[in-house]
Amino acid sequence: MSLIVEKYGGTSVGSPERIQAVAKNIAESVAGGDRVVVVVSAMSGETNRLLGLADSVSAKPSARELDVLVSTGEQVTIALLSMALHSLGLGARSYTGGQVKILTDNVHSKARIIHIDSKKMMEDLDNNQVVVVAGFQGVDNENNITTLGRGGSDTTAVALAAALEADECRIYTDVDGVYTADPRVVPEARRLDRITFEEMLELSGAGAKVLQLRSVEFAGKYNVPLRVLSSFETGPGTLITYEESSMEQPLISGITANMDEAKITVRGVPDMPGIAYNIIGAVSEAHINVDMIVQNIGSDGLTDFTFTVAGVDLDKSVELLTPVVSNLKAQTVIGDTNLAKISVVGIGMRSHAGVATTMFQALAEKSINIQMISTSEIKISVTIDKEYAELAVRTLHKAFRLEHLTN
Amino acid sequence: MSLIVEKYGGTSVGSPERIQAVAKNIAESVAGGDRVVVVVSAMSGETNRLLGLADSVSAKPSARELDVLVSTGEQVTIALLSMALHSLGLGARSYTGGQVKILTDNVHSKARIIHIDSKKMMEDLDNNQVVVVAGFQGVDNENNITTLGRGGSDTTAVALAAALEADECRIYTDVDGVYTADPRVVPEARRLDRITFEEMLELSGAGAKVLQLRSVEFAGKYNVPLRVLSSFETGPGTLITYEESSMEQPLISGITANMDEAKITVRGVPDMPGIAYNIIGAVSEAHINVDMIVQNIGSDGLTDFTFTVAGVDLDKSVELLTPVVSNLKAQTVIGDTNLAKISVVGIGMRSHAGVATTMFQALAEKSINIQMISTSEIKISVTIDKEYAELAVRTLHKAFRLEHLTN
Repeated sequence: MSLIVEKYGGTSVGSPERIQAVAKNIAESVAGGDRVVVVVSAMSGETNRLLGLADSVSAKPSARELDVLVSTGEQVTIALLSMALHSLGLGARSYTGGQVKILTDNVHSKARIIHIDSKKMMEDLDNNQVVVVAGFQGVDNENNITTLGRGGSDTTAVALAAALEADECRIYTDVDGVYTADPRVVPEARRLDRITFEEMLELSGAGAKVLQLRSVEFAGKYNVPLRVLSSFETGPGTLITYEESSMEQPLISGITANMDEAKITVRGVPDMPGIAYNIIGAVSEAHINVDMIVQNIGSDGLTDFTFTVAGVDLDKSVELLTPVVSNLKAQTVIGDTNLAKISVVGIGMRSHAGVATTMFQALAEKSINIQMISTSEIKISVTIDKEYAELAVRTLHKAFRLEHLTN
Repeated sequence: MSLIVEKYGGTSVGSPERIQAVAKNIAESVAGGDRVVVVVSAMSGETNRLLGLADSVSAKPSARELDVLVSTGEQVTIALLSMALHSLGLGARSYTGGQVKILTDNVHSKARIIHIDSKKMMEDLDNNQVVVVAGFQGVDNENNITTLGRGGSDTTAVALAAALEADECRIYTDVDGVYTADPRVVPEARRLDRITFEEMLELSGAGAKVLQLRSVEFAGKYNVPLRVLSSFETGPGTLITYEESSMEQPLISGITANMDEAKITVRGVPDMPGIAYNIIGAVSEAHINVDMIVQNIGSDGLTDFTFTVAGVDLDKSVELLTPVVSNLKAQTVIGDTNLAKISVVGIGMRSHAGVATTMFQALAEKSINIQMISTSEIKISVTIDKEYAELAVRTLHKAFRLEHLTN
């Protein structure tokens, strides 16, 4: 008898009919002998509807109240799914993040999970109940409602799987697995049967939308086997584990394009120790994640400092940097959203030289100019002009021959 | 500096614009030096939308999950109202029923408040915050979400006013006070400046929709001065207190018609002790409120037992009575919804004879047949054929000359 955590995203629970289909899917798991904990998102469209209401009463709604507001979205789904499960004759009990209880820090809209109390859930499972938990939400130690940020339901699912020591965490979504590239951009992209945590981490960080980065981090940290599969069709999906494939590991597992990043350049900074700390510190203290960082070699004792953040954080970052620029006696700070980050990810890269060369050559042949470069053990990312993004992904998918089962 | 609890119903917070208007109203109270705790309902239409979703996934949704579902309605409103208050430069913090915390028993959808912890609210008030609380909801001692039943937000407001020892509890609604009769039925109906708790209790119990019965009970029990007023126009509204008016008390304060009751008759019950206990007990154990009870004198050792319940409880009551009827060896149980309960209420009745006579005579003159009669110290209720309800109210309003300031 396995303990499985199943997570269904907003599209999967987007209508009463879809919720009933999800209930049937869960019933099959239960019939197969599994004990099931379910994590659900808000019905698709609901979070945006709620944010629209907030916008209509306030130009700048408070983060605490936004969390109170949007957390109702998942609460509606847990109740409806529990009712649908009852209709199929299954026992089921719903819990909000606060009820479970999923304790987080107090950073509203971007809270991090500190602890989960698994006692109540284990009792329910022992009593043959399906446990239905609201994703994306928790409470801080003063019982204020917090949310984990968009996509946080994946993180909830993995955190629950870790706390309950589940045998597998299944992320049901609108795609049937992890692909070598976005199939809408590259029609010959292939679904991967398996992928390692490290690769998935790099793919998520590089813009692959299929799983939220933090959920993969969490799964890797607690070694929770994670499976991405479709809630609309049956299939094995993609399993994400520490085990590498039994076949020879392919060189590259995927190519991604992230269109949602923005570039910030601080120009004319006097070149002296502490620049990076002063600039990046100011931004990350506001809980804004910084991605690529490049510091150019200066001339005349002045240097340019460039980094990328999520597009939504651009205005706030520039605002935060304005006093810093003045303190550092730098010239100016410039924001730019006209860029795409293209990444090539693969664990095989470790033992193969020449990946960067292949990548840069392929882009050069298409006259695509590279702005910034950043590398890790198993990833190379470059930023390019946004309008070349799809061309770059298709070109690289071909250059690394990802359409073939082994490359 | 007074402490005021203000309650705004669903129509008053029915749109973002209405929520902003409510925020302005609260800002005026604060500017006048009051400390304000606000209780809000779900935006009008929202509870029905949620119940519709429940119906679409389950033929018989569980009471626990219905409470999880519908309690999101008020949670949306508290967040939006707090944001709107922030926009006006006021400090404000929202709380769900569970956060405050409003402890109830565990009777889902009809829970009763056991205790309210006022500490957090007093701290917020001391810090110049407007405290915004979700009406209608609480949690049981296992932290399950409960609701108080439709209209329960009034009860929340009064219970908070009692716990906080507030100076006044103001119920803002879509009418500007308590009337001698429903003005849609009787155009010459008058707004009452003051009314006693006892009268208001009888009026609410008799079908006047302006205040929920339990909120009036609660206010009377804890002596919370209660004021009903319009959220759409300014005016003094109607004050409900223990003090009687300084003028000579009018004989009758109001006439009501309740169209939502159903009559249940158990026919041919062997006339012996314990009938009432067996019949009424079976129904009230299921937390169904019984209103009028009439037992006719039997013939041949058989008697008919008749009582009324809320229309929504009819099917369940008949179902509950089926085994009882069989146990009692009675003939049959019959449900009937074609009736209206017409009530005449007035504290002046105590010291004046002849109210019943005037009432029965006026109805007889219009050929309106009386089915059941029940009386209290300050109320006489009769049930009649539903189609005569409006005529009966207009006839009695005239018979007691309620269009005049003193009658």
